[in-house]
Amino acid sequence: MAVNSPLPVAADLKPVNGIEIGFAEAGIKKPNRKDILVMKLADTATVAGVFTTNRFCAAPVQVSKANLAAVAAGGAPIRALVVNTGNANAGTGETGLDSANATCAALARLLDCEPHQILPFSTGVILEPLPVAKVVGALPAAIANLKADNWFNAAEAIMTTDTQPKAASRTVDICGHSVTMTGISKGAGMIRPNMATMLGYLAIDAKVSQDVLNELVKHAADHSFNCITIDGDTSTNDSFMLIATGTGSLAIANTDSTEYAELKTAVTDIARSLAQMIIRDGEGATKFITVTVEEGGNMEECRKIAYSIAHSPLVKTAFFASDPNLGRILCAIGYAGVDDLDVTKLDLYLDDVLVAKSGGRNPAYQEADGQRVMQKSEITVRVRLGRGAHSATVWTCDLSHEYVTINADYRS
Amino acid sequence: MAVNSPLPVAADLKPVNGIEIGFAEAGIKKPNRKDILVMKLADTATVAGVFTTNRFCAAPVQVSKANLAAVAAGGAPIRALVVNTGNANAGTGETGLDSANATCAALARLLDCEPHQILPFSTGVILEPLPVAKVVGALPAAIANLKADNWFNAAEAIMTTDTQPKAASRTVDICGHSVTMTGISKGAGMIRPNMATMLGYLAIDAKVSQDVLNELVKHAADHSFNCITIDGDTSTNDSFMLIATGTGSLAIANTDSTEYAELKTAVTDIARSLAQMIIRDGEGATKFITVTVEEGGNMEECRKIAYSIAHSPLVKTAFFASDPNLGRILCAIGYAGVDDLDVTKLDLYLDDVLVAKSGGRNPAYQEADGQRVMQKSEITVRVRLGRGAHSATVWTCDLSHEYVTINADYRS
Repeated sequence: MAVNSPLPVAADLKPVNGIEIGFAEAGIKKPNRKDILVMKLADTATVAGVFTTNRFCAAPVQVSKANLAAVAAGGAPIRALVVNTGNANAGTGETGLDSANATCAALARLLDCEPHQILPFSTGVILEPLPVAKVVGALPAAIANLKADNWFNAAEAIMTTDTQPKAASRTVDICGHSVTMTGISKGAGMIRPNMATMLGYLAIDAKVSQDVLNELVKHAADHSFNCITIDGDTSTNDSFMLIATGTGSLAIANTDSTEYAELKTAVTDIARSLAQMIIRDGEGATKFITVTVEEGGNMEECRKIAYSIAHSPLVKTAFFASDPNLGRILCAIGYAGVDDLDVTKLDLYLDDVLVAKSGGRNPAYQEADGQRVMQKSEITVRVRLGRGAHSATVWTCDLSHEYVTINADYRS
Repeated sequence: MAVNSPLPVAADLKPVNGIEIGFAEAGIKKPNRKDILVMKLADTATVAGVFTTNRFCAAPVQVSKANLAAVAAGGAPIRALVVNTGNANAGTGETGLDSANATCAALARLLDCEPHQILPFSTGVILEPLPVAKVVGALPAAIANLKADNWFNAAEAIMTTDTQPKAASRTVDICGHSVTMTGISKGAGMIRPNMATMLGYLAIDAKVSQDVLNELVKHAADHSFNCITIDGDTSTNDSFMLIATGTGSLAIANTDSTEYAELKTAVTDIARSLAQMIIRDGEGATKFITVTVEEGGNMEECRKIAYSIAHSPLVKTAFFASDPNLGRILCAIGYAGVDDLDVTKLDLYLDDVLVAKSGGRNPAYQEADGQRVMQKSEITVRVRLGRGAHSATVWTCDLSHEYVTINADYRS
């Protein structure tokens, strides 16, 4: 069960004009479950994405990057995305690249376009060969059920250890233009995106030029998926794709307008919702933790400290136990790698409770106050460094027995 | 129960001439257990140490560093060490420094020396005031039972979540001189030493000049305690102290001799044993894992990759499950931060089994071979980078349910 995160229902998810979605059961890892997703795009669509920085980036990531680069070099636009779960097609060498390209070629034949107009994605177990015949064999079934209101099925089709599908949808007014945006995401373990996340797809019906979309996807990722961590394990397959179908009335060709500023806020906001759903459904998560580091000399040092707290197994198990053993947070701050940190200027808050003041225990701090906050399912850790005006926020979850159970059993 | 690590017994531990050890029950956290240790040194002894780099380094660490600096500046030599468990005296600000200094002053009065001739150490819960009256009140009892063959009691007196005392002892021949060396260590969680470890003490009866001892302690720590990690949490209190009592026949005044080279090997070897005991007794540990990264362009990148593997919760839970889900190791290599890593030159071995070859799955690899190795309680992960001639080794353990249980319950 995810932390304070109600299941989205199909009726909540608005179709985005210019996108049709199909799914199929290929039996990649287990029978009788959706494991193939196809998203077919209108001719007017532009697509931009950010991908994992893991050096063992998966074959489909390499192919998707190459195919987007082909568009940037003047090639024909992207016509479809295809996603499989059950196998990451990572750590698979040349064979893996062949499999990803074969998947693109098969879908291109069905959609009457070129292979490089397809973006492939995979998620699942690493270091095992992709059963490419099963993937290719299931594509006609996915094409056969293409329709606009399949977003809920899409969210289900990309799940792995997720306990619930993740999706968000809204219609916003941007300077008088109604813009619909719907997105899905997945991921519950191996989550510490560093450029993007393990599969997020967000579509909007505005018309957005490629250059602007490239800027927009990076901004949105940096303020959403790139601020979450479950276990510090940056996946081999992380990808966040932003699709502007170009079917609505809003058209944006440069970043110098009120329209763009408002769109950026709205896109970042929905991307953040999708990212936070991943944390709420983190493997074994019982708490949703916001870590905010303020008054830093630069953003990098704020992020270092926030991630150091968010990754500490001792901090995470203390949250699981609702135990205000808060010295563990100071310890994690201390080893974050900010070498000139003067701890005597540092304050630590747990929600509204001032726990440590000027680097030592706040004389007025009562354990009962810490205990009261620790009982909650949503908690904010706030660190004030007293060094400057920069800040950073990271969202994470606790470390529970269930995390160990899930990851000791995942392949079985 | 620790991994393949038999309990030392008192008879195994040789006294080191020039050191007397006393202990007491101060009731700092719990009644009826040894929690105070005093080590009294001969006038001929030299002492050197390395300490945590955590910016929230504990008050006793600050005082010990200052008191060693006073010796280096020509002050009177160190006469005694005092250790308490049950409270780390970290995150305690000015009050904590006062408590550490008060402890030194009280022991100095009993031993008729100056307070700066005492080195204080603490281990236990962070962010709670040290009950200094209990510590000081227990010192006379510790002094009263000072004797040379108390090493086993000393190992017990410094335990926190350790399930067993850690100690090693041997007599070695160095160029015709018999040298006795006995050491103790503690630590089972919050273990990722970065300069030293959470309390290690090693005594030898050679006569070693201060400059040489400073070099020796750093070398030994860098090749032992600084190569272990349990949970990545670099403690606020890590300290590794090397004491040369000067009572034996071996005397070393500079580093340019066969005697020194042999002593360095012997001291590093016993330090490594003490460090590895900490991993074998890691919180909840069921496996002892050696991670070796070879053929790196420099040692730093080898260490980055080794620690990335050793800290990955996904890798650690796979070891706990004896599940050869070895793609998780490739993933951890990929996000280690070696930006120009060419994975197509990389091989991965699990003991003698070649799992990944040239960055992809070894075609000859059979899951049964991986499974066979994963069943073992001692496993070596070997990564060959194909980039150069440098290497690094890190020792770690798995992540089990018991780790979560221990750290969700530690303070209760």
